[in-house]
Amino acid sequence: MDELTVFAPGTVANLGPGFDVLGLALERPGDTVTVRRSGARGIRIASIEGDGGVLPHETEKNTAGIAATEVLRRAASNDGFELDVVKGMPLGSGLGSSAASAAAAAVGVNRILGDPLGPLDVVACCVEAEAVVSGRHADNVAPAVLGGLVLVLTVDPLDVSRVPVPHGLHVVVVTPEFELPTRKAREALPDTVPMGTVVRNSANLSALIHALHTGDMALLGRALDDRIVTPARSPLIPGCDTVIEAAREAGALGSSISGAGPSVFALCPSKRRTGTVAAAMREAFSAAGLESTSVVSRADNPGARAI
Amino acid sequence: MDELTVFAPGTVANLGPGFDVLGLALERPGDTVTVRRSGARGIRIASIEGDGGVLPHETEKNTAGIAATEVLRRAASNDGFELDVVKGMPLGSGLGSSAASAAAAAVGVNRILGDPLGPLDVVACCVEAEAVVSGRHADNVAPAVLGGLVLVLTVDPLDVSRVPVPHGLHVVVVTPEFELPTRKAREALPDTVPMGTVVRNSANLSALIHALHTGDMALLGRALDDRIVTPARSPLIPGCDTVIEAAREAGALGSSISGAGPSVFALCPSKRRTGTVAAAMREAFSAAGLESTSVVSRADNPGARAI
Repeated sequence: MDELTVFAPGTVANLGPGFDVLGLALERPGDTVTVRRSGARGIRIASIEGDGGVLPHETEKNTAGIAATEVLRRAASNDGFELDVVKGMPLGSGLGSSAASAAAAAVGVNRILGDPLGPLDVVACCVEAEAVVSGRHADNVAPAVLGGLVLVLTVDPLDVSRVPVPHGLHVVVVTPEFELPTRKAREALPDTVPMGTVVRNSANLSALIHALHTGDMALLGRALDDRIVTPARSPLIPGCDTVIEAAREAGALGSSISGAGPSVFALCPSKRRTGTVAAAMREAFSAAGLESTSVVSRADNPGARAI
Repeated sequence: MDELTVFAPGTVANLGPGFDVLGLALERPGDTVTVRRSGARGIRIASIEGDGGVLPHETEKNTAGIAATEVLRRAASNDGFELDVVKGMPLGSGLGSSAASAAAAAVGVNRILGDPLGPLDVVACCVEAEAVVSGRHADNVAPAVLGGLVLVLTVDPLDVSRVPVPHGLHVVVVTPEFELPTRKAREALPDTVPMGTVVRNSANLSALIHALHTGDMALLGRALDDRIVTPARSPLIPGCDTVIEAAREAGALGSSISGAGPSVFALCPSKRRTGTVAAAMREAFSAAGLESTSVVSRADNPGARAI
C-alpha cells in the first residue's frame, strides 16, 4: 500500500466541567488527509484545501506535518510521504481542526508503515503537533484518534481512558461566524479559582462521569454545568449565555462552549430533540447578530479511519 | 415497637481528590444509638457513653438530638423519644463521628415512626445536624445513612448518587493520638486554587470515578491523589506525608487524609495487603512521635441499621 486517505473527526474538548480533561469525537465534520509514499525522506505537505490559504505549508509548522514526522521518528523509519490535507471544518472554531488534521496524517502514515505504533503512541505523536499550535493537551487529539468520549488523566505520560457513552446521546454543535483566537480564549482563563467553585465544579465533573457510566440522562443534565471556564470565556462570544440557555430550554440536557470556542455544543438524550435544539441555539446567536451553522451527531463515534 | 438500637458506621469523607464530594461508609468503627419512646414531646438525650464527658447533652447542640428533632419536624410528629448515645470511635478523628451519631438517631426515630421519611430525607435531617458542628456538607452523613460510596452533587437540594465499589477493595484507616480541631483543618484550606492544580485534581477525580465503575485498580491508584486539600492540611498532622508514602510503598493503591483528619486512610486492592499497609502507616506515625490505632474494613458496607 503506497497511498491511503484517512478521515479524522472534529472533537468537542473541554466537555462541560471537564476542562482539559474530557473530549468526544463527532460524527462530522472532520478533516481528510491523503498520505502518499514519496521518493524523498521525511514528510512534505503537498497541498492544503479548504483553509482559505491561511495554514502554513512548512512541515514543522503544520499539525499534519508535525504529527506525521513524529510517527516516522518513533517508528525509526527512513521512509518519505507527501500529504494532501483537506480541511472539512472552519479553522479556529473550537472543533479541534488542528487535532483532526494531525490525527488523520499520523494514522495514515502509521497504517502504511504497517502500524508500528500502537494507538496510544499515535495519540502521543498528535500531542506534539497540538503543543505547537494550542498547548500541550490531549482532549482533542485523543478522541480524534481513538474515537468515543475520552478522559485524559495525564498528558506526560499519556494516560487516557474511554468512558462509555449512553445509548441515544446526541450532540448538537453550533458554530457562529465569529473568530475567537485560541490565544485570546486562553488569556481569559482565570489564574486561580475560589475554593467553593472548585468544589462545585468537581462535584459536577464527578456526577458527569458517573452519569455517563450509568446512563442517567437527568443526572447528566444536572452535571453538565461548567462553573470555571465557561463563565470566563462566554463574555468573549456574543450571545453565548443566551445560546446555552436556549439549548436547555429547547430540551437539551445541557450546553457549554466547545473547546476554546466560539462553537457551542449541547447534549441531547435522543435524536428527536436535536433539530429543535439546533434551531433555538442558532436563533439565539442570530439575536446577538451572528450567523451560524449547526451539525448534529451521535455522541459515540469512531476515531480516525481509512476511507 | 417502642425501642430500637441502631448502629451507624464511621465514614471516610473527602475521599482523595473528592473534597466535600465523595465519602464511603466503613465496616467499623461506628456509633450506636438506642431510641426509646418517652412520655414527653420531642427529643431528649438520656445518656452519652464513650465521649469522655465532652459532648453536650442539650438536644439542640448534639448531632443525634438535632437530626432526630428534624425527623420529627419533617414527619410532623408530636411523639417524643429518649436517646442513649454510645460513641464507638474517637471524637474529632476525621471518621465522621458526629455524622454517625446523627445517622443512627435519625434512622432509629424514623423507623419507630414507621419510616415516614425516605432515605434521602433522613440524610437531609442529618445534614442539618452536621451543619451545626462542622459545616453544611453531606459526604459523611450520606454514606453513614445510605452505606456504600456516595457522590454528593449538591447539598441544597440534596442530590446524591451511589457509586459502585470494585469487588475486593479494602480500606485501612489509621488514627493517631493527636487532636486536630475541625476548625483548624478548615482554616488551612486555601481560599483559591491555581488553575493548573484545578485541572490536575479534576483529572484525578474523573479518573477515580471512572476506575470505581470499571474496577481498574491500577487506574484507581493513579487517580487517588489529592493535589488541593491534602497538601494544605498535611503540615497540621505530624508525619502525614510519610504515612501516605508508607502506605503506597507497602502496596496500597493510594492514601490520603480521612475527612478533616488526623486519621489517614489507604485503599488496597484486596484484603491480603491490608495488614502490611496498616503496620507501615502506624510505623510512620510512630517515627513522627505519634501512637496510633488502625482498622481494616471492606470498602463497600451497609449504612445505618438496626442491630
